[in-house]
Parts: sequence; C-alpha cells; structure tokens
Amino acid sequence: MVQKKRLVVIGGVAAGMSAASRARRRNPNMEVIVLEKTGYISYGSCGLPYYVADMIKDHNKLIIIPPKIAREKRGIDVRLFHEAVEINPSEKWVKAVHSESKERITFPYDKLIVSTGAGAAKPPIPGIDSKHIYVLRTLTDGVALKSYIDSGVPQKALIVGAGYIGLEMAEAFRIRGLEVTMVEMLPNILGTMDAEINAIVENELEKKEVKLYKDSTVSSFEANEAGEVKGVILEDGRRLEADLVLVATGIKPQVKFAEACGIQLGPTGAVAVNEKQETNIPDIYAAGDCAEARHLVTGKPAYIPLGTTANKQGRVAGENAAGGKGFFKGIVGTAVFKTFELEVARTGLSSVEAEKHGFNFVTAAITDKCCAGYYPGASAITIKLVMNKDDGRLLGAMMVGQRGVSKRIDVFATALYNKMTVEQISQLDLSYAPPFAPVWDPILIAANIGLKALKK
Amino acid sequence: MVQKKRLVVIGGVAAGMSAASRARRRNPNMEVIVLEKTGYISYGSCGLPYYVADMIKDHNKLIIIPPKIAREKRGIDVRLFHEAVEINPSEKWVKAVHSESKERITFPYDKLIVSTGAGAAKPPIPGIDSKHIYVLRTLTDGVALKSYIDSGVPQKALIVGAGYIGLEMAEAFRIRGLEVTMVEMLPNILGTMDAEINAIVENELEKKEVKLYKDSTVSSFEANEAGEVKGVILEDGRRLEADLVLVATGIKPQVKFAEACGIQLGPTGAVAVNEKQETNIPDIYAAGDCAEARHLVTGKPAYIPLGTTANKQGRVAGENAAGGKGFFKGIVGTAVFKTFELEVARTGLSSVEAEKHGFNFVTAAITDKCCAGYYPGASAITIKLVMNKDDGRLLGAMMVGQRGVSKRIDVFATALYNKMTVEQISQLDLSYAPPFAPVWDPILIAANIGLKALKK
Repeated sequence: MVQKKRLVVIGGVAAGMSAASRARRRNPNMEVIVLEKTGYISYGSCGLPYYVADMIKDHNKLIIIPPKIAREKRGIDVRLFHEAVEINPSEKWVKAVHSESKERITFPYDKLIVSTGAGAAKPPIPGIDSKHIYVLRTLTDGVALKSYIDSGVPQKALIVGAGYIGLEMAEAFRIRGLEVTMVEMLPNILGTMDAEINAIVENELEKKEVKLYKDSTVSSFEANEAGEVKGVILEDGRRLEADLVLVATGIKPQVKFAEACGIQLGPTGAVAVNEKQETNIPDIYAAGDCAEARHLVTGKPAYIPLGTTANKQGRVAGENAAGGKGFFKGIVGTAVFKTFELEVARTGLSSVEAEKHGFNFVTAAITDKCCAGYYPGASAITIKLVMNKDDGRLLGAMMVGQRGVSKRIDVFATALYNKMTVEQISQLDLSYAPPFAPVWDPILIAANIGLKALKK
Repeated sequence: MVQKKRLVVIGGVAAGMSAASRARRRNPNMEVIVLEKTGYISYGSCGLPYYVADMIKDHNKLIIIPPKIAREKRGIDVRLFHEAVEINPSEKWVKAVHSESKERITFPYDKLIVSTGAGAAKPPIPGIDSKHIYVLRTLTDGVALKSYIDSGVPQKALIVGAGYIGLEMAEAFRIRGLEVTMVEMLPNILGTMDAEINAIVENELEKKEVKLYKDSTVSSFEANEAGEVKGVILEDGRRLEADLVLVATGIKPQVKFAEACGIQLGPTGAVAVNEKQETNIPDIYAAGDCAEARHLVTGKPAYIPLGTTANKQGRVAGENAAGGKGFFKGIVGTAVFKTFELEVARTGLSSVEAEKHGFNFVTAAITDKCCAGYYPGASAITIKLVMNKDDGRLLGAMMVGQRGVSKRIDVFATALYNKMTVEQISQLDLSYAPPFAPVWDPILIAANIGLKALKK
C-alpha cells in the first residue's frame, strides 16, 4: 500500500484555505493539515469594517468555511491555535506550538505551503501599548474593537494612517456615532494615488465631518492612570483627544521564520515565487499576503497584498502541491474601496509609480457622469489615466465617484492585462443604457482625452 | 479665394449630430448642413422610457444639443422639418422637402453623410391604424405617448414584442399605474438571448404583475366607433383588452432612398460601410442605425443598431468627411437594459448565434452574488458564457441580476475585443471590496466553471 502524501499548510485564512481545499479536490488521497495560530480560519477580513460598523451583526457571518465544515466536508485537518515556528526543509518538517498548552508538535510534510499572511505592525511610538489602541487585521482584532465600541465608552476615534483601511474605518466609526480624526504622516492620503482623486476623497471627508491632519506624525500616545489612551501628541506639539485609536499604517509580510529556513525573499521583502507559486526550496510553495506577485504592467515583482490575489495564489499553490499544473500570471494592481458615499478605485500605475519605474508617461483626467445626465441620480465620476508616451499603451487608471466606479475600473484592469493602447480602449464596445452610463461612457471619454494628450 | 467645402448630413440625431460636430471641430472652415425631418435634433432616444415613466418630467431634458446651440456655438446649419428624398451622387446634390411648406430644396454637397437611422415599422395587422397604437422611436413618438397617459384615460397597456424596448416600457407603464400585458410572437422573450437569463427576467415580470403571452401572434386590433383601440385578437382567438398599445417589434434601417441612388446595402439590409464609414460611392459616408458594423467576434457585418455605435460611427464619418483619418473597428454586440429591479446585459454571441455562425461551442452558467455574501443587500447574479470549444476563446456572455451587471458585462466586452480565452479571463485582476464583489468575482467563477466545461 502506498503511503498517503501529506501537505502541510501554514496559515488558514484566504490563501491557506484556498490551497487546502484545492489540493483535496485535486487529489482526495492527499492528507492536508492546516496550522492556524488564531482560533479562526477562512474569514473575510475585508468585511471587518462592516462588522465594526454593525452592518454585519455576527462575526460568524464573516467566516466562509467553519472548521467543522473544513474537517467533515472537505477532509481538511484544521489545527487551530497552532503557531508554526520552524521549518526544516532538509528533513521536511514544520514545528508548531499550541498557543494554550504550549506543546510543541512536529509535522513532517511532503509538500508545504507557506501562507502566513501579513501583520499590521504597530509602529514603535511611545505609549502605543496603551489600552484601546487597535489594529484591524484579524477577526480577533475586529471582535475586540467592536466590543469596545459596543460598551458605549468611546466617543472620539483617532485613526493613524489615511490609506484605504483607515478610510473604510472612518466611515465605520461615523456610522457608530463617533467623532473621527485622521492623522496621516505623508502630505497626501491614499499613498501613491494621484492628486485629482485624493482631492475628491478629502472633500467627502470634510462633508462627513472627519478631521484630517496630513503631513502630521504622531510622536506619542497619552494614557490615563488606568493605562487607557486619551490622546495623541503630534510632532509639532499639537494634542488631539482620543479614547479609541486605530493604527492603520500598512501591513508587512510575515516572513521571519520562512526566511530563517532559507526561503528566499524578493526585492519587496515578501517571499519570492514563480508562476507556479514555488519558492526557491523544492516542495515549498508560498501564497497570499506573505508572497510577491508579478506586476504585469512593470513586469517586476510587486507586493500588493489583497484577498483576491491571495485566493488565486492559494488555489494555484494547492493545485500544484497536489500534482496539478496551475499557474498565476500576476496582477495589475487593481483595488477598490468605499468610503462614505464614494467608490474609489485604481488599477495599474499611478503617476508616482510610473515615474518611479522610469516610464515616459503622460496623464489625462476627466470628470463626467456615471449615467445619462438626464437620468435621476446621475452623479459625477472622475477618471485619471496614466499612459506610456512612447507607444500609447495604458499604464494605469484611477477613478472616483458615487456610483459605477467599482466594476468600471475592471475594464481598465482587463485592458492592462491585454496591454491595450489608449486608442484601442477608445474603440471598445461598452454597455449603454441611461440608468448605467452616458452614451459615451466615461471610459471612452477618458480614452479620447487621453489620445489628445498623447498626441501633444 | 478658395470656396468653402460643404458637408451635408442627412439625419440629425445621434450619428448625424456627432458627425456634424466632429467635422466642424476637425475643419472649422467646412460648411456643415444637417437635414432633419422632425422638429428635434440630437436627443437621447434611449431615455424615452424614463420620460414616459415621468421620471424625467420635461422632454427638453433629453435634448443634448438644442438647435440654437448647434447653430450658434458649433456653427452647424441645422434645417429642421427637412426630409431628404433624393440623392444624386453624380451631380452631388441632395433634395429635401420641407414638411410644412412642401417646398423642395436642392443642397449641393462635397461630402455627404447618410445617418437616416432606423424606423419602428408597424406590422401590417388589421386595425393597426386605430388611435392610441404607438411606436416609440422618436422624441415626437414619446411626447404623444406620454401625453395620452397624462390624460388619465388609459388603464390597460398592451405591448406587442418582448424585446428590450418592450421590457423597459413594461416598467414605465407599471410606474404610471397601468395594467400591463405583453404579447410575444416567439416562444421566448429577448430574441436570441439564452434561456437561463430569460427565465429570471420572466420571473421578474410575474412578480411585477405583468402578463406575458409568448408564442402568440396578434391577428387584429379592435377599435370602438371613435376609432380608439380597445383590444387585440390573438391568432388562437383569445381577446385581450387594451386602451393603449405599444408596438415594439423591432426596427429596420431607413435605407430606401439611399439604396435608390446606388448606395450598396450589406447582407443585413443596412448600408454597407468600411472602417472609415465610407459607402461604395465616393464622398458618401454612412453612420448610425442605418448602417452595418463589423462584428469583431464573427468577423462579419452585423446590424445591431445602438446609440453608442451610432455616436462612434458618426464621429468617424465626420472626422473623415472633414479630411481626417478616423476609423471604427467594429462592435462586439454589447447591450444592457433595466427592467423593474433587474439589470440584463449581453455581449458577443448567444448560443443561438454561435450555432448560426457555425462555431463549435460549449456553454456554462453560474449564479453567485453581486457582492460579498455577508454584505447587506447582496443579491444574485447569473452569468452564462458561450465559448469556442476549438481554442477556448470566449464567444459571448450574458448576465442578469439586481445589481452590478451593467459595467461587469464590459469586462467580457473588453475580453471579446482582445479575443481572450476563458483561461486568460480566469487570470484577470478584478476589483474587490465587500460592497462591490465577492472575493471571487462572478466573472472569475464563470470563467473557472467555463474552463471545466471546455475540458470535458
């Protein structure tokens, strides 16, 4: 009798559970063990802002595959509270520690998938360990944060970092009736996003009475005698009150112990993988927020951790670990989020990024309507294009508006995948009916204005 | 002094006014005359259902460029109530008749653009000339229909034809408080649309208390002594009451007098044009609902008259008539409409069309959610794909759901333009956030299920 092959998956959220499920479907004879350090697997962490906003009442709604289902229906051996701490690639085993019993267990493997995700690191600011200073990364984080709001104690929320998580949470906090202040270290919100888009988002924040301090660094947190946060001090000496702080200053790939065993990191600091999600070490794959992906616009490895990419990469890693032939071509950097009444989206490179990657580029921006101007509720939509001056190819698109942004950006994402020129985009046969688009879709208007900019 | 070149444009709605505006912008020295047989130019006829529904109060809101603006701001010599009746290509003139004075005027031209549009023909059914039997094609039609509803007299509307105009109008009539019955000659609604989509639309009609008779032909209309319609008799002898009838059985290109002067029609019966919108006769262009367009999936000429195509073709005809170098590659058959709570869309070929064009094809259908399942208001979305079994290429996509259909279809439209395989589509980096999509967008789920169907 042939012994069953064993796949060990480290991390049981998006990439990990996609990988485990796929491997079992591909090869039902394979033993699949998932080591998850928290008490939850397979949850939609992108739903956390809506859970905190109380639009979703029960955190169990965010769980896609409960452990019981994973075990009984999918035959996946899920081990909760098992934190992997060491990989030995030559002897092919992983060591994990049980977070309660502190027992150390060794799991031999035939194939290993590293899907350790990313961590929301609290920056080393004095006072950051005060009570009621949160990050929002895991379901555990979300449950803790919501429970504090539910207590009715907090009144003034302060968000450090004006990226998309910060902006989603600004809305969530306002829904919960809190005053909201945001502090952003950079002179602009949303990282590398272009100024035309940011101006509209900032205007929305103002309308919703969110105070925004840009170009402002938190130098310390103040706490009361009970150790509860009461405010922040900015570098310029200003003091802002807060009884709830959310630190949303970005995330970092969790790669420390993978790196320790010789798994190679790429230029971004995340695990380097090929199209098959293989790392440099035989039989070890990586997927999800701990791994890089190829950026199809630059052709270079990129680190843009998102749930969609994690799921795709996990699926490919699982497929291949189980003997299949999956591949993941890469990403074009598509992202969308909602903040208050606005949908904000991007794909490809922004101006700053095109500059950084050495493209000879031009840009064009337009504002038009999401639907026929005469249709009730028609609202504005702004599009900014970044284009390669040398060959007329689209490099990136950014978009903001109240409606019709989220899937419209996907036309540009599809265009980027196909390396379309702006002229080709101007020829697209896009859907039109008054409730959904003007007869010249804003995409086509942007492409036409883009063409003019290219010809200058 | 060089004499000004003169462009004459026949028809002043979408294609015609796009052409005229473009020509003037391209060459401000060109004289541009637009002959329009009705009293209106440049209106959004696709908005007529919403005007009749009284969601748009004033018909002037549908007018994009009023004649005064066209004349004063764009320098276009608009002649209302001028019906072109004859073209003489050898002597290069057009003859028009003024609909009131009956005066016949001859307009010499250097360049001519035929944008005569399409007509909603009333079929030759006994009694069709009774009062209160309408078509909905021109703004004049819409004003007459709405005015009758405004009178408060009609109670029971009957729509002949269950295509997209019929379905948009079913909603409009229900909004106005009318009972609605639809009679469709074919065994199915929506022409060549696949059954999975139609089943969902029919279910919606039932929910909204619209009575639908399929496989039913109207043999005559009944009128009272005053000549007002009172009902229809079906071929099987059944009688349906109605005091308002809308005939929405499709449209035909208006090409009679163009054909008479030797302008060649294509296999579809509309004017044959090349990528430059040139007809077979030198210096005569055609654009819009009277013309064909190349279907980029079949590679053959097609007749799918829509406002978007009309505008694009008009622009190219105007550009070229004024000495530029415009081109219009073609269409992929993208369309979307709203009926009650549903968005219904398609692009490329349906099963029936793939069959007709001799493709070796397979199909796949999925139903998933428009947004994250845990997000409030998540609703179902159904996608059907038609795929080329020989090379895995997408041939068409159809989609229906309450939200997120209209621009999602454009991803498939963009895929068709780029001749993408379903495997490539499964690799797309599409936008994701809980309010807008599940982490696996329905597009990706459909592509993955499609891949399985292709491998069978």
